[in-house]
Amino acid sequence: MSTVLQVCARAKAAAPEVAAASAAVRDGALHAMAAALDDAHPRILESNARDLEAARAHDHPAALLDRLTLDTARLGAVADALRALSDLPDPVGQVVRGSTLPNGLQIRQVRVPLGVVAMVYEGRPNVTVDAAGLALKSGNACVLRGSSAAIHSNTALAEVLRAGLCAQGLPADAVCLIPDTSRASVKELTRARGLVDLLIPRGGAGLIQAVVGDTQVPVIETGVGNCHVYVDAAADLAMAERITRNAKAQRPSVCNAAETLLVHAGIADTFLPRIGEALRQDGVTLRGDERAQALAGAEPAGDADWDTEYLDLTLAVRVVYSLDEAVAHIARHGTRHTEAIVTGDRAAARGFVAAVDAAAVMVNASTRFTDGGEFGFGAEIGISTQKLHARGPMGLPELTTTKYVVEGDGQVRE
Amino acid sequence: MSTVLQVCARAKAAAPEVAAASAAVRDGALHAMAAALDDAHPRILESNARDLEAARAHDHPAALLDRLTLDTARLGAVADALRALSDLPDPVGQVVRGSTLPNGLQIRQVRVPLGVVAMVYEGRPNVTVDAAGLALKSGNACVLRGSSAAIHSNTALAEVLRAGLCAQGLPADAVCLIPDTSRASVKELTRARGLVDLLIPRGGAGLIQAVVGDTQVPVIETGVGNCHVYVDAAADLAMAERITRNAKAQRPSVCNAAETLLVHAGIADTFLPRIGEALRQDGVTLRGDERAQALAGAEPAGDADWDTEYLDLTLAVRVVYSLDEAVAHIARHGTRHTEAIVTGDRAAARGFVAAVDAAAVMVNASTRFTDGGEFGFGAEIGISTQKLHARGPMGLPELTTTKYVVEGDGQVRE
Repeated sequence: MSTVLQVCARAKAAAPEVAAASAAVRDGALHAMAAALDDAHPRILESNARDLEAARAHDHPAALLDRLTLDTARLGAVADALRALSDLPDPVGQVVRGSTLPNGLQIRQVRVPLGVVAMVYEGRPNVTVDAAGLALKSGNACVLRGSSAAIHSNTALAEVLRAGLCAQGLPADAVCLIPDTSRASVKELTRARGLVDLLIPRGGAGLIQAVVGDTQVPVIETGVGNCHVYVDAAADLAMAERITRNAKAQRPSVCNAAETLLVHAGIADTFLPRIGEALRQDGVTLRGDERAQALAGAEPAGDADWDTEYLDLTLAVRVVYSLDEAVAHIARHGTRHTEAIVTGDRAAARGFVAAVDAAAVMVNASTRFTDGGEFGFGAEIGISTQKLHARGPMGLPELTTTKYVVEGDGQVRE
Repeated sequence: MSTVLQVCARAKAAAPEVAAASAAVRDGALHAMAAALDDAHPRILESNARDLEAARAHDHPAALLDRLTLDTARLGAVADALRALSDLPDPVGQVVRGSTLPNGLQIRQVRVPLGVVAMVYEGRPNVTVDAAGLALKSGNACVLRGSSAAIHSNTALAEVLRAGLCAQGLPADAVCLIPDTSRASVKELTRARGLVDLLIPRGGAGLIQAVVGDTQVPVIETGVGNCHVYVDAAADLAMAERITRNAKAQRPSVCNAAETLLVHAGIADTFLPRIGEALRQDGVTLRGDERAQALAGAEPAGDADWDTEYLDLTLAVRVVYSLDEAVAHIARHGTRHTEAIVTGDRAAARGFVAAVDAAAVMVNASTRFTDGGEFGFGAEIGISTQKLHARGPMGLPELTTTKYVVEGDGQVRE
């Protein structure tokens, strides 16, 4: 058995004990893990320094170095996040629905843990702590496969988390880190049928495609967001400017940032010069069709621009002649993540909401709101862009399944 | 593009129109389809006669011939099922949850159709009508791939259903039958990424494994049921006999029938002779461990018997020495479908319910109750044995996904 499958088997063996633990024990373990983190700053930061040194030696870009960096403040924040998680309602044991049948059978559908949740992620080592906490809170064991760039940080963090679990009497294997960060280890995870109940890839399009395109274990796709802002003919232009700037520039590196601006022809003459000027002030480069080039000073866009998730300060801009054309553009180029319309026209808003197929549709609000924290879920393990099981921000309930419990007094079928 | 992908593309093109149709239009189409079926008995029965003739020529077993056979009564029943479906609550547009955030954003999570639901099934041609009806009621287009044995019946049924759709002004391609019934056509369906939103295999373990083991489209596993009845030391033996006989013999060919009986050692001396005698009267063959051979007259069981879904009048029987041993046997050999305990001991019932990992756990009731109709769902497209999206009987809500609709008045993220 390969190392990856051995790690999965250890998590699988620990899963029943995690699932059977009371909410008090699991919440206690979250606090124990947070305390263990607080006590281990020197050791974790030393490991993190080794990762940073290697990353600098490999000439990794500054953005990656920033994501990789841990410090006292960031470690304090992840420990606090574990404590906050312990205060959220326990999803395990919730009765989703129930009824008593005419024959006297009492049926209830109860939330139960999935078992083993595996996660493949890139960059930030704090995901190691977040994912372990979310899995534990929802009664699951977890298998974590972080990036090679963060391997020393992740190893130190996982050891500290495991010590926290043991302190609370839970099995250390409730949190398992895969030491192998090769591409092959991801492939092996997709083959761990019967050992992994859910595999979540979180990262760039390449990683997600590598997992989703060929898997034998259940997967939830997360994250790729080619999000659009459509400014309708009946838009309040000040609102449209505010939303477009926020959607593009407030934090361009995340999946719910906008990548394409669609502008109705009826307001293009006034809105495009205005938004072009405003976005230039934000440092945004525009790539547009002919009218956007003429009116907003955009560079010429190529065919690929409409399908590109830039994740930086670049925005594609196109003029459309109707709501239908905007919807058709989104259907063709969108990734079903988040789409926004800015309009004062009730019919246009209703038409857009009905016709656009996406995890989240915004009316007069920034695309940036698609987020578990913003939605009030208290925690988020990712944003699903698929249709089965979970769509949009995934909180604790999405890390569970259900079981029907049927109680009778001897009923049989006629 | 292959024939299969062409068919999927036609359904995909029809899907938005089905999704946008009002409940009244979709319910009207269900009635139009039922009326079209009523009017087409001669044509359908003629096609069915061709299938039956071919099946007899191939010496297919009597059970298959029976499942393949349509007659006036069966056709009337499937048409009535479509009408009954129209009376069920519309799942599309249901608001699953909603809230108003402190910043004034109004969020609601709304049920929307999946898009294209594909189904691969064996044997019975009535599934063609059931699946088309369930897909339409839930706002989806469907792609149907039935067995070669039923190809003439299925073709006639699909043509009639499509005529019914047209009569109501909906696109005929909302119901598409794949004419190719080769093994390769199933493989092609699993490759229809972007065209098929959900693929449901319904049939034997071989078919399900062929689909699930290597797919690029989202799949829900259905049906394989190696179900157990565990008779605890504290069981009412008359109840245990009634439940065991019902679970095994009332309809042995279905997935929620029991395949293994586990008997606590403490009551084996009295219960095994009794149940052996009773099951023999029902025509059941027993295969058991040494005590079951001695006490219930069972034939010797081999290792494979504990993993076999007989789907006929055969039952494996084993004596266990504790609840834990029963649970461990089920964890090792069960297929996570339905597991039953018969006991008067409250602690044993609670322990069994908590420890057994299955779609449905029965306490003092027959395994045969795991069924959408019995659960009061009004309709069922299959019984999911997986943990994501749907687990247990799948009704109309399980054929939908959700979309978050967020309405604001210009909110942006700070």
